[in-house]
Amino acid sequence: MAAAIAWADQPEREIIPGFHGRLIHSDRMTFLLWRIDAGAPLPEHNHEHEQVVHMLEGEFELVLDGVPHRCTAGTVLVIPPHARHSGRAITDCVVMDVFAPVREDYRSGEGAATLLGGVRE
Amino acid sequence: MAAAIAWADQPEREIIPGFHGRLIHSDRMTFLLWRIDAGAPLPEHNHEHEQVVHMLEGEFELVLDGVPHRCTAGTVLVIPPHARHSGRAITDCVVMDVFAPVREDYRSGEGAATLLGGVRE
Repeated sequence: MAAAIAWADQPEREIIPGFHGRLIHSDRMTFLLWRIDAGAPLPEHNHEHEQVVHMLEGEFELVLDGVPHRCTAGTVLVIPPHARHSGRAITDCVVMDVFAPVREDYRSGEGAATLLGGVRE
Repeated sequence: MAAAIAWADQPEREIIPGFHGRLIHSDRMTFLLWRIDAGAPLPEHNHEHEQVVHMLEGEFELVLDGVPHRCTAGTVLVIPPHARHSGRAITDCVVMDVFAPVREDYRSGEGAATLLGGVRE
């Protein structure tokens, strides 16, 4: 991997409906920069990765272990491994998620299938 | 740790001259949000943590293993464990560094001493 990467050079794809993501993987972490359409729902799911959500723009309601959190620019939300989470974009949003360790399912291109199909325990 | 955290609630301190930082630690990562004064130099150092630099505003020259990288908003730079790095803020900057694993030296409040004193191998 080149040391210096530009977000603008990473392809954007609609990973789940309304969630347009760009991915950068380092050795230990995955960075996922989202552009989310107002109203788009995030289905409940969980994963073994720790996830830290950085709200950059807009407003998103994230439900973590049954507790709703209203996130706006400057909110950081820590999702422990295996914690159930879901949500909904109140407005158009820009969000960066950081995962540790690397999301191998996203690296292999199967992230959406995993999120929507298999991981809801 | 509360799940939802606001950057604005985290105290800012001048960790090294010209580098004003706020810290958030999760279990697996440390997030360091910098406000950096134009002209401030980053002394060469290295550490065992993987570090991923996210340029949010401004322009910063980061020298990684002897190679200069000009970073602007949207640049992501991956610094492998133990890689030597230094730099200089060309303009006022806003930068978020993400470290894995957690920077225990910053959690204990000794990060600046470590950076400026001991780690330059």
